[in-house]
Amino acid sequence: MTSPLLTLNNGHKMPQVGFGLWKVDNNVCAEVVYNAIKAGYRLFDGACDYGNEVEAGQGVARAIKEGLVKREDLFIVSKLWNSFHEPEQVEPILRKQLADWGLDYFDLYIVHFPVAIKYVSPETRYPPGWFVDDAGTKVEYAKASLQDTWKAMEAVHAKGLAKSIGVSNYTGALLLDLFTYASVKPATLQIEHHPYLVQPKLLELAKDNGIVVTGYSSFGPQSFVDGDMDLAKNISPLFDHDVINRIANKHGKTTAQVLLRWATQRGLAVIPKSTSVKRMEQNLDVTAWDLSEEEIQEISSLDQNLRFNAPLNWGIPIPLFS
Amino acid sequence: MTSPLLTLNNGHKMPQVGFGLWKVDNNVCAEVVYNAIKAGYRLFDGACDYGNEVEAGQGVARAIKEGLVKREDLFIVSKLWNSFHEPEQVEPILRKQLADWGLDYFDLYIVHFPVAIKYVSPETRYPPGWFVDDAGTKVEYAKASLQDTWKAMEAVHAKGLAKSIGVSNYTGALLLDLFTYASVKPATLQIEHHPYLVQPKLLELAKDNGIVVTGYSSFGPQSFVDGDMDLAKNISPLFDHDVINRIANKHGKTTAQVLLRWATQRGLAVIPKSTSVKRMEQNLDVTAWDLSEEEIQEISSLDQNLRFNAPLNWGIPIPLFS
Repeated sequence: MTSPLLTLNNGHKMPQVGFGLWKVDNNVCAEVVYNAIKAGYRLFDGACDYGNEVEAGQGVARAIKEGLVKREDLFIVSKLWNSFHEPEQVEPILRKQLADWGLDYFDLYIVHFPVAIKYVSPETRYPPGWFVDDAGTKVEYAKASLQDTWKAMEAVHAKGLAKSIGVSNYTGALLLDLFTYASVKPATLQIEHHPYLVQPKLLELAKDNGIVVTGYSSFGPQSFVDGDMDLAKNISPLFDHDVINRIANKHGKTTAQVLLRWATQRGLAVIPKSTSVKRMEQNLDVTAWDLSEEEIQEISSLDQNLRFNAPLNWGIPIPLFS
Repeated sequence: MTSPLLTLNNGHKMPQVGFGLWKVDNNVCAEVVYNAIKAGYRLFDGACDYGNEVEAGQGVARAIKEGLVKREDLFIVSKLWNSFHEPEQVEPILRKQLADWGLDYFDLYIVHFPVAIKYVSPETRYPPGWFVDDAGTKVEYAKASLQDTWKAMEAVHAKGLAKSIGVSNYTGALLLDLFTYASVKPATLQIEHHPYLVQPKLLELAKDNGIVVTGYSSFGPQSFVDGDMDLAKNISPLFDHDVINRIANKHGKTTAQVLLRWATQRGLAVIPKSTSVKRMEQNLDVTAWDLSEEEIQEISSLDQNLRFNAPLNWGIPIPLFS
């Protein structure tokens, strides 16, 4: 099974269901990527910050070498980390990330968060993370505006190093501002999106502007309970929520599949992660069957406008969503 | 009674308690401003969008003519409307606004909302409002970035047309971005602020950056019930809230005074409006007596992160806070 393709505003096609590499351990990452390709995944969503681009690239290389796929069958996504927003840093770090993957272009390269923090050289610490010091106590900002960073993103796009460019974790006001200065409109917007954080108006804005939205953390608190976040531990898990359970039972699907189908049926792309081949396969099977309109509405009505992946929730003193 | 002064990050001094001109009717505005000056107000918070700058200026002129105050005793605030964000429009509209007031400088000129909408010439319609058409059905954006608009704000500041410049309705991410490109840091941030929308992290960010915060709509839903907003009609009014009533009774103050003191004691400036001279006087008396730390906490704990003054709540399809 593979995923259907969505057509981006620049004509490129992107798989609607991909594989997310956040929190995939280095020691299993190459194997996981290889298995995911065997299971039918063609999109891999990586990032400097995930710290596993070398290993992910090894998994890709093995699959290509064994003839499972060709490079052009794959859609590889990576992200510009906050420490590399200064325009002169964008191309060098992108080239380093390509080298880590063993690729000569990304299909999509996106601004990871709308904030510029102080440069840390890859020789000093990589990935650099949110803090400027090794001890992880101090945030320092950089003097790179989002407008100037986007111009640098457009430049690497023009060079063919990224076939498409996009943004992540942007809010409505940031997108509206981006539209004023973008010569190349973002092809995609990646945001936290699950039944506790539905963001209908942001989705509408993206749609009105021809931007495909990729939802991350589709299972809601799950990813953050693992990260030991109190906010996530104190709310009903969506994997075991009465509404989701009932709908899953009715369709003979897992709750994870219902959560993913709720997103894809509304037009979003999704990037679930699993190291289990069985669940990889289940997570891919989220486009060929339908929820009813009432079920979609019922799931959407669980909305609490509750965001987990805000820096402040991780103890990082950057009020990005305040 | 007059207000204590707050010192801005550029050394200028601003009254902590001022008079807000939003929704002051044209036919009473001159009289109201004149009465407010007599009552002791020195700061007037106006805006193109309020549509009453001519009349406000008449009230000021009368008070100066009668010798109640001199120009330099006053602190006149105005705002750049969304339709005038294109850099070449900033100085012309500012000069028109100064002419309307009959002034040769503003003490503070602020970006009203972080969104650029299409230019409407003052000859066509003034104030232009949110919509590009007279019928009020269609929003069109303009291609002016917040970065470029801020550079134009810095230019009018450099010419002395605005002694200080600032922003309004900016969120954390927008402020962080502004800090990357601002040669002149904003002196103030004006935001909706009341016990249902406390925004502690945004206040902290402003404080850390030496920016004075002015809270508007200090009485919460009140201003919006008048504007017939359902969201505001369906929540307990703060003017008649058990917690606020109890604290007001204890101090022998009105609930309005408690709401204003809660803000000023936490360091914010406030800009209440009243056309009643009695209430004007009460609203000025919100700095010379204190709430206890427990009372402040109790009021802050009413927070619901509930914003009334978002364009979407007025039926304007701009997802500025989404």
